[in-house]
Amino acid sequence: MLRKMLNIKHPIIQAGMAGGPTTPELIAAVSNAGALGTLGAGYMPPEDIGAAIAHIKEQTEAPFAVNLFLPQSYETNEKQILNMQAHLNHYRKKLDIPEIHTIPDMKDIFERQLEVVIETGVKIVSFTFDQPSAELVKRLKNKDILVIATATNVEEAKVLDKLGVNVIVAQGSEAGGHRGTFLSKENEALIGTFALVPQMVDAVSCPVIAAGGIMDGRGYAAALSLGASGVQIGTAFLTVTESGASDIHQQAILSSKDTDTKITKAFSGKSARGFKNEMMLELEKIQIENLPPYPIQHILTSDIRKEAGRRKNKEMLSMWAGQASAMSKRQSAKELIETIAVDCSKIISELHRQQT
Amino acid sequence: MLRKMLNIKHPIIQAGMAGGPTTPELIAAVSNAGALGTLGAGYMPPEDIGAAIAHIKEQTEAPFAVNLFLPQSYETNEKQILNMQAHLNHYRKKLDIPEIHTIPDMKDIFERQLEVVIETGVKIVSFTFDQPSAELVKRLKNKDILVIATATNVEEAKVLDKLGVNVIVAQGSEAGGHRGTFLSKENEALIGTFALVPQMVDAVSCPVIAAGGIMDGRGYAAALSLGASGVQIGTAFLTVTESGASDIHQQAILSSKDTDTKITKAFSGKSARGFKNEMMLELEKIQIENLPPYPIQHILTSDIRKEAGRRKNKEMLSMWAGQASAMSKRQSAKELIETIAVDCSKIISELHRQQT
Repeated sequence: MLRKMLNIKHPIIQAGMAGGPTTPELIAAVSNAGALGTLGAGYMPPEDIGAAIAHIKEQTEAPFAVNLFLPQSYETNEKQILNMQAHLNHYRKKLDIPEIHTIPDMKDIFERQLEVVIETGVKIVSFTFDQPSAELVKRLKNKDILVIATATNVEEAKVLDKLGVNVIVAQGSEAGGHRGTFLSKENEALIGTFALVPQMVDAVSCPVIAAGGIMDGRGYAAALSLGASGVQIGTAFLTVTESGASDIHQQAILSSKDTDTKITKAFSGKSARGFKNEMMLELEKIQIENLPPYPIQHILTSDIRKEAGRRKNKEMLSMWAGQASAMSKRQSAKELIETIAVDCSKIISELHRQQT
Repeated sequence: MLRKMLNIKHPIIQAGMAGGPTTPELIAAVSNAGALGTLGAGYMPPEDIGAAIAHIKEQTEAPFAVNLFLPQSYETNEKQILNMQAHLNHYRKKLDIPEIHTIPDMKDIFERQLEVVIETGVKIVSFTFDQPSAELVKRLKNKDILVIATATNVEEAKVLDKLGVNVIVAQGSEAGGHRGTFLSKENEALIGTFALVPQMVDAVSCPVIAAGGIMDGRGYAAALSLGASGVQIGTAFLTVTESGASDIHQQAILSSKDTDTKITKAFSGKSARGFKNEMMLELEKIQIENLPPYPIQHILTSDIRKEAGRRKNKEMLSMWAGQASAMSKRQSAKELIETIAVDCSKIISELHRQQT
């Protein structure tokens, strides 16, 4: 059913990871392999989104999705921002980049991002960080655009279902990157994929996609067993040959172990799972009321993380990853998808054989 | 293989939940239904263990296990304990029970518990809270007793595997009750079942049992898909008719939702997942260095939790439960086990049908 709805062979969604990993090459490779590629456009200027979509379309005729961050309201003040700048200047000095003592320019680009996505004829849009308005869902559906949204607990899933979204991603606590929590405190909705998926499947009428800790055919088969209609996979796509993740990020994933990640607000002001490092652990010592909220903290730390990436300094970088990152491999997107699909079939056949 | 090793029909282990839920009636019903019942003997005086085992044997000839807590070293001091007593007297006053201003008697009963288990001819012993010594594993194996131990991350599992335990339980972060973490800080090993099981299966040579968030046939099929040799289920057995869990605990489970639990050290000094309530949230405000470690805090809060249970006051009670507690039902242990086994078969057959 999800296959038919999304017009794909394998109900495997490559997560729309923002910040560079989802190159047009990756998205096209995923979609050409029969799964669903997703452009992680959350941080992208509208014109870059347009260019990326054009570039994807040159390489595939298969469906792909674009992921956007729904804007959430936030409260901050000059003092909080300037105090954080002063604190961050400590890292800027270490990296020999200019200190900053000003308040950054904050513009909401969501509406313009959305316009580009609609204009370019993208057929599937996925959202995270909040619930879309009923108006927005209607607007997209009127243009025959399928809407995928993210929930981290049953209550959120019920809200999204009522809004009429087409598909809900159940983001378990294992998942790497930002949490999509919007109805409770982010740390109150850290529900493991195993517990989350069946409860969500029972609570909503639309298809549920399992996300968090899924890396191979075993995870795919397990998700289908739990009642999911498909899976969303992030971390495993970060180390494929078409990935745009930095070398240092990929190396960290390939040499990681199960206990290396942590959920933190340090880098962006919003809870996200990534590898523990110096900057994360130091920033976590700051009282939570002094930490600017998302997207402010994200903007404030951007220059530092960018420069640290250039210098391959993994201590001042946000490197998002899920709890099963150690299972990542270096291979092509096509190999990853085909191996997942084939292994899943083998597992199901073997379990079936054992019980007969 | 696990079926043969444990001499059971269904590789489903009823978790050895300490503190009352695992009545001889429950254990016998589980084992008679073809799964493995477990006496949660962690807190039981040795003579009570002997009596319970005799009582179980009157009701079943099938194998069952006994779960014990491996003693861990801890550091505390008079001041810390007396300060906590003073703090806890606030709850004792509310419950009209005598205030306590003294240091409790602490005796290690592990060796005597173990002797009873060996003497009574129990064939399967499971441990949690630490790694057994090589000597202990050898001693049990020499008596043809199978050893099951608990790990919460890959490193712990490797240690247990090297020690030669027969079976390892992979305790995911979804699981209710106490965490079995012993090689890292308890909050650093909160790995979801979905991520934990395949990584552990790949790392060890002995069978791995999945635990955490498993409530029904979907969870059983998913665990087998991930490579587990079986499942351990706790919360779902708390509401069966043979359960010794208090009415108030059972009611809390049956009316719970996915976001109701939290991992806390408040009640026992050791991380455990249970329902949020007044006493938990208040005690969490105490600085961690002022909280006596397990088993001290467990002993200090015992009289309060016992009286609160008697009065059906759910605000001063520890009520352990996993993140899928909302899926619990009122039924017999036999019905639960048979439904899980039948539903799992149906799911596997249906997935097999879909792919052919």
